[in-house]
This record gives sequence, structure tokens and C-alpha cells, in this order.
Amino acid sequence: MLKHEVLKEITLVVGKQNVFTEPEDLHCYATDATLGVPVVLPEAVVKPASAEEVSQILQIANRELIPVVPRGAGTSLSGGAMPIQGGIVLETTRMNKILEIDKDNLLAVVEPGVITAHLNQEAAKVGLFYPPDPGSVAFSTIGGNVAVGAGGLRGLKYGTTKDYVLGLEVVMPWGAIVKTGGRTVKNVTGYDLTKLMVGSEGTLGVITKIIVKLLPIPPASRSMLAVFDDLNNAAETISAIIANRIIPATLDIMDKNVIRAVEASSRVGLPVDAEAILLIEVDGVEQVVEQELNRIREICHQHHVREMKVARTAEEKEQVWAARRNTYGALTKINNTDLVEDATVPRSKVPDMMRFIVDIAKRYNLTIATLGHAGDGNIHPNIMFDRNDPDEVHRVEEAIKEIFETALRLGGTLSGEHGIGLTKRPFMRWEFGDGGIEVMSRIKKALDPNFILNPGKKF
Amino acid sequence: MLKHEVLKEITLVVGKQNVFTEPEDLHCYATDATLGVPVVLPEAVVKPASAEEVSQILQIANRELIPVVPRGAGTSLSGGAMPIQGGIVLETTRMNKILEIDKDNLLAVVEPGVITAHLNQEAAKVGLFYPPDPGSVAFSTIGGNVAVGAGGLRGLKYGTTKDYVLGLEVVMPWGAIVKTGGRTVKNVTGYDLTKLMVGSEGTLGVITKIIVKLLPIPPASRSMLAVFDDLNNAAETISAIIANRIIPATLDIMDKNVIRAVEASSRVGLPVDAEAILLIEVDGVEQVVEQELNRIREICHQHHVREMKVARTAEEKEQVWAARRNTYGALTKINNTDLVEDATVPRSKVPDMMRFIVDIAKRYNLTIATLGHAGDGNIHPNIMFDRNDPDEVHRVEEAIKEIFETALRLGGTLSGEHGIGLTKRPFMRWEFGDGGIEVMSRIKKALDPNFILNPGKKF
Repeated sequence: MLKHEVLKEITLVVGKQNVFTEPEDLHCYATDATLGVPVVLPEAVVKPASAEEVSQILQIANRELIPVVPRGAGTSLSGGAMPIQGGIVLETTRMNKILEIDKDNLLAVVEPGVITAHLNQEAAKVGLFYPPDPGSVAFSTIGGNVAVGAGGLRGLKYGTTKDYVLGLEVVMPWGAIVKTGGRTVKNVTGYDLTKLMVGSEGTLGVITKIIVKLLPIPPASRSMLAVFDDLNNAAETISAIIANRIIPATLDIMDKNVIRAVEASSRVGLPVDAEAILLIEVDGVEQVVEQELNRIREICHQHHVREMKVARTAEEKEQVWAARRNTYGALTKINNTDLVEDATVPRSKVPDMMRFIVDIAKRYNLTIATLGHAGDGNIHPNIMFDRNDPDEVHRVEEAIKEIFETALRLGGTLSGEHGIGLTKRPFMRWEFGDGGIEVMSRIKKALDPNFILNPGKKF
Repeated sequence: MLKHEVLKEITLVVGKQNVFTEPEDLHCYATDATLGVPVVLPEAVVKPASAEEVSQILQIANRELIPVVPRGAGTSLSGGAMPIQGGIVLETTRMNKILEIDKDNLLAVVEPGVITAHLNQEAAKVGLFYPPDPGSVAFSTIGGNVAVGAGGLRGLKYGTTKDYVLGLEVVMPWGAIVKTGGRTVKNVTGYDLTKLMVGSEGTLGVITKIIVKLLPIPPASRSMLAVFDDLNNAAETISAIIANRIIPATLDIMDKNVIRAVEASSRVGLPVDAEAILLIEVDGVEQVVEQELNRIREICHQHHVREMKVARTAEEKEQVWAARRNTYGALTKINNTDLVEDATVPRSKVPDMMRFIVDIAKRYNLTIATLGHAGDGNIHPNIMFDRNDPDEVHRVEEAIKEIFETALRLGGTLSGEHGIGLTKRPFMRWEFGDGGIEVMSRIKKALDPNFILNPGKKF
């Protein structure tokens, strides 16, 4: 239990109005977007406004051995923001300033609580954009994106969060405020602490400032939707596009369960009798974009596409993408629980993985709706189930094991962009072996010897 | 001193023909491309053929507390491969197989001793290329490139080594053979040990396998040379090209001292009366390449270019680039020592940095020849001096301090691509502060508690 004097000390750091201990607050901060079911309540929610305040809180927590769970907007899909050992939830949303957009050096300096979409709105004013765009871009914070190494719809062409973080300010568990990386694209001075922090899920330090690389907005972009009567054909189309050396900005797939759920929820006119849809966006210089679009049409025809719709206006385009972004909301309406997995395979193995998921749903009698950034091999099977049915829960657990085993057997990885958090922890040893786990444990112990930061996560 | 029994044990691991202890061998391996002057001789040179052999050697060294300096082709420009505490030099050149080029997933799996240019030759057979191209690409090993996080001429558009390493096999000091990353572009499973190892300069583990991302060779590319009578104009041209949102593959600068040295050595027809030359290459789709080239010509004219030569044939192009790649060889002929620095600044600060270097050469009465991948802010001032003249050596030391101070003041970093090694170690604290150094020290101690790996390097 958090001692009264300790709470008082923390209150002195951030002010009374930024410490929350009422049961209704604690309930709100007990969970994130993963399951919706609290496991353990935190003992306090604290909202610091600066690196200095974070430093003081961590020094207190480190001295008193209080768990600290850093949290942005709480949109984690892997339990990353759940305070499973109680303690303090440290929310970064008060540190929400875009400090600088440097258009000469194509970079921005932001605080962790900035909503990622807001950064893009500001950057657009000078013709720039921040490429990583997780499905949650309109409400997740960039600090959370960095902590989890978030991916998104544009990952195929543009990469993910880690490819855009140039530097960080991080507060270590013992209170030191450390700068990593910097403002230059090239930098090999010291160990790459920046990349070590990206994706460390709040287990090594608390991020308080972020320098990200921006890119010029491409002069042209076109979006299309390709409808297939056969899942295999859709999956093979993806491989064929890449094999033709076309790298679209987005190359996403939705299976029939996703199509139906999205259409039921958003009514954007998706064909509910289709077996699969590909969402494709190409961007770049005008002439090249047109050439690539035409080539993609040909490839779709070769793979027996039923229908193709190219968005003619920005509104048409936005409608389709908004529906895609609402997938998760749509799927959670089907049953009381939607567990979204995040296995990633080498892109040539996408058809194998898609077929395997259809098969496993049949074998375990489960409803699995699959979508994914298939162009980069990142598949999201959503298992919709009733968490109050122990038999179904057991079948879900067995199916997840098989999904991970298969992803690893195909040369893939447990998580492409959602992180390990709580839910995938048991499978880490499968991927890394004893040696890899030992290396990570040694780093964790070296940087957080009292294990106060987001304990019980990652491995 | 290496005990006789220990040497015997090592010999049992790799075979007699792969252990070298004769004085002439030890002299060869006492230094790298940095200074040409041995400091300390190693006690043995060992050439293992597999991760298993590396593991056994490290276990012996770890038990006996023998320093181990991993080495590729010995082309380090920062003393990274110098065995300054004696012990074993572990050369990776016997592990020199290209294990796989996977054209469907755009990746290659290689052993560390592969010469980087050889990988590109093989990849080209299926229309792919490995973008990082350090000046030493024709003779340095990819293992060395990864260890130092090498950059190169294409860094502006394509990034550096760390942007292309997807996964590694690394042998830890205690002998564990660990796999990091993998074959997928997206991967947030576990801490990013891959990026931690890239640029760690052999101080954390020995790399025994590398998975790299490849890209399709762009359909068109054009190279040009722009000659300026004024260094400022050349530097401002660089900023203007980037400000016009053109990102050439290469945007390199050479000042008059470099031009003269290269021409004296290579006779490729460079104008020896010019103050600066820009080497520019644009690549991509044919039409876009032509458009960009024309736009660059206009920008050069606006900045009072004297002359522009566009290479018309592959031979013409190769001639220019070969001259550029021989710069280092050309400069070492001027005096007995060429110290090449590697400070990197935000790209908008390149003109400031170039002016500063001219000024400092004057103030300290030194010959400094500057070239660099100016488009990405990475400047290489080469200080040519007589190492037997104590007064000149002192002036060199003072000048280097000022160069680093200035790079950091301009928002830059000590090293863009050559690494810290031995030569820049004293300046690390300026960049990272006590907190940053502490984080790195904790990681080093956690992963190499006996400090056997490349001791005395990096920090």
C-alpha cells in the first residue's frame, strides 16, 4: 500500500489537482484497450507536467519500491498500460506540446502527450508529414507510440515508429534525465539508446521528449479498394504486387468477417458478400502513381478480382479509411471480448498464414476476423469470444498458441506493432531462447534494478 | 600474458593454421586504418570459422580475463580495431559466405566476413541492392560495417547501416549464441537488441550472422559534378537543394584541398583551381530523375556555379566515384598522418560548419581538407600533419576539441558514421552528460561484466 506520507510527497511534486486516488479514477486507469476488464487497481494516478517532475516521482518510487506504469492515452492492445501490480499510473497527457517543427532539417520536437494526429496536422502546414500511422492515430499519444514501437497502415513503404525517432529525453528509474540520439540523421556516437527505448514499453525509462524525422508530403496519392470472391486470390495478389517491385504506401487486407462487422457498424457500402478486400494506397510523383495504379489493376485482374473502386475524391478516400480505422470498434460489438493478435511473418508467407488462420478457426470452432497490413506481413487475427465461457476461453488460448507457433515456424515474430505487454509474455522464450531472454533480463536489471517500471510486462 | 595452456586450448578450437603469434603477424594486427602506428601488440590473432568456435573462444577469454578485439578488414578510422590492451584479435574474415538472397522478401542473410561490395554484386543479379555504401565498401566487411554503424555516400536518401539490419546472430561474452530481430520488417518483440548491437563497436558481443534488408535497384540514376569558385556558394547550394524537397541519393562536397589531392593522385580531370565541388547523384523513376536533375541545375545556377558536368556513360560516372572513394588514399600522401574527423550537424548548419573549419585551419595554422556527405550534415575534415612535430600535434589536438565543441553547439554529434573507437572517447561526456554515460556503462557492465570485449573503446 502507498503510504500516506509518500502520497503527500508526490502531491508536493505535481500539485493536489494532478493526483487521483478516488475509486472511480482508479477503475478508469486499471485497464487499457486490451480486454476492458480490470485486473488490479492502481493506488494512485499521477499526472506530471515536466521531466523534472517525472524525475522526482521516479526517485520517490525507486526509494519506496512502488511500481510505476507509464501511460499515454491507454490505447494499448497488449495490456501494456495495465498496472497489474498496483502502484502508480504515471500519465503523460499534460506534457502535450509540439515544441518545434524544423522544416529545414525535416524534424519535429514534441512532448510525449501529443496526440499523433495533431503532430500531422501541424506538420502539414509546412508540407511535411510524420509517416507512422497506427490505427489509433486520432487518439493515441506519440509517447505511447514510441514506447510500443507502433506500426500502422503505411508501414510497408514508410516503416514504423522506430524508423522515425531520432532522439529522446528519457527519465531513468534513479531520476537521471538522459538525452539520447539527437537532431542528425546520421549518429553512431555511443550505444543506440534511442532504439533501445523505442518499443521497451515503459520498462526501462519514462519518455519526456521526442525528436522525430518528418518527410515531405508526396505530391500525389491514390487509394483503391479491390474486392475478391476468394481469400487465397486476395492474398496471392499481395505477393504479386510486391514481386512486381511496387511498394504501395498501404496494402491492407480485410477478410469477410471484418468486412461484415465494419459495414454493420459504419455503413460505407462495403460488399458484405465478398470473401476479402484489399485496401491499397500508392503515393509519390503524379506520373509514377498513375503507372503503379494501372499496374496494380492488371495484377488484380490476373488474380480474378471481382471489382475495383478507385476513390475519386478526398471524401471518398477518407470514408474508406475511416471505416478501416474503426475496425476495432466494429469488432468489439460482435461479442464481449475481442482479442487482437499481431503476429508478423515474412511477406511471402502471408498467404500461408491467412490459410492457417481460416483452418484454426474451423478446428477450434472460433470466430476469427482477420485484417492486417499484409504488405509488410503484419496480420491481425481478431478472436471474438465470450470471456464468461470457460470452454471457449480455453479454446482461444490453444488457438493463440498455435498462431504464435506457426508465425515463428514461418520465420516471423510474435508482435509486429502492438507490443508484448502482458498478453504475449508467456511466448517470449519461444522466440528468443534462453540466451536472448538472459540478455534482455540483464539490461532490465542494469537499468531498473528495483524493477519499479511497468513490472510484469514484456518478459 | 597469454598462458601457454590457454593458447593451446584456443588452438584446439580453431586449428593451428588459424592462430597467429609470430611478431610480423602481431604487428599487422596491432593497428587499423586510423593512424598506422601500433600502440600495443596483440598476443595472438585467432580466426574462427563459426559462431560455435567464437562462443568457445569467448568462454575461454571470459574465464581467463583476456581482452578480445573483434576485427573485420581493419578499415576502422577511429581506432576501433586496435588491441590497445593486448589480448586476442578475433578476425571474422573466414566467416565470409553469403548464405541467402531472398528476393521475395527483399533480404539477404550473410556472414560477417563478407566484403560489402560482394553482397551488392550478388544482389544485383536479382535486381536488388544493399544501400549503405561506406567509402571503404570495396574492401571493408559487412560485420565491421554493422559493428560501427557505417554510413556512406548514399546516406542522405537511403540512411545508414542501422536502417538495413533486420536481425543478427551475436555471441555474448559468456558464450551464449543469441538471435536478435528476424526476417520481418515490423518487429517489436522484446528490446531492440539488433539496434543496440549495431554501432556498439564490438564492445557488447561478436556478430556472427546478419540479416539485411535489400531494395530494388532504381530504374534510373544520373550523376553530376558541380564546380564552384566559392565554398560558401557550394555549401548554400546544398541547403537550397534540400529546401526544394529534392532528396538526391548522394550530395557530397569536396573542398579545394581535397580536389587537389585527389587530382594529384588519380588524374580524373578535376578542376584544381576550383574552391569546391559538389558530387550529386539522383535516382528513381526515369522522368522524375530528369526533372530533379534539371531543377538541381537551376539551383546551382542561382548559386553561381562555374560549371556542371553530367556523366553521360557508366564509365564517366564510375571514374568520378572511384576518385571520390580514393580520397583517403590521396590525402595520406600529403603528410605522414591524416586524421579524419566525422562530426555531423543538422543539415541546415552545414554552411556554418564549413566556414568554421576554414577559420580554424587558419587560426591553428593547419592543413585541413574537408569533404563530406554534406546533404546529411556529415562532414569529414581531414587534418594532415606530421606526427613527429610535437607542436603541430598539440595544435591538432586543440583544433579537434574546437571542432567537436562547435558540432555539438550547432546541435550535432561527435560521429556520424566512423564510430567513437579510441580517438573520440574523451569527448563522449560532452555529448551525453553523466546520466547518458551512466546508462551506457550499466549496459556494458551487464552484458560484459569482465570487460573483455574491445576494452578501452567507445567510452
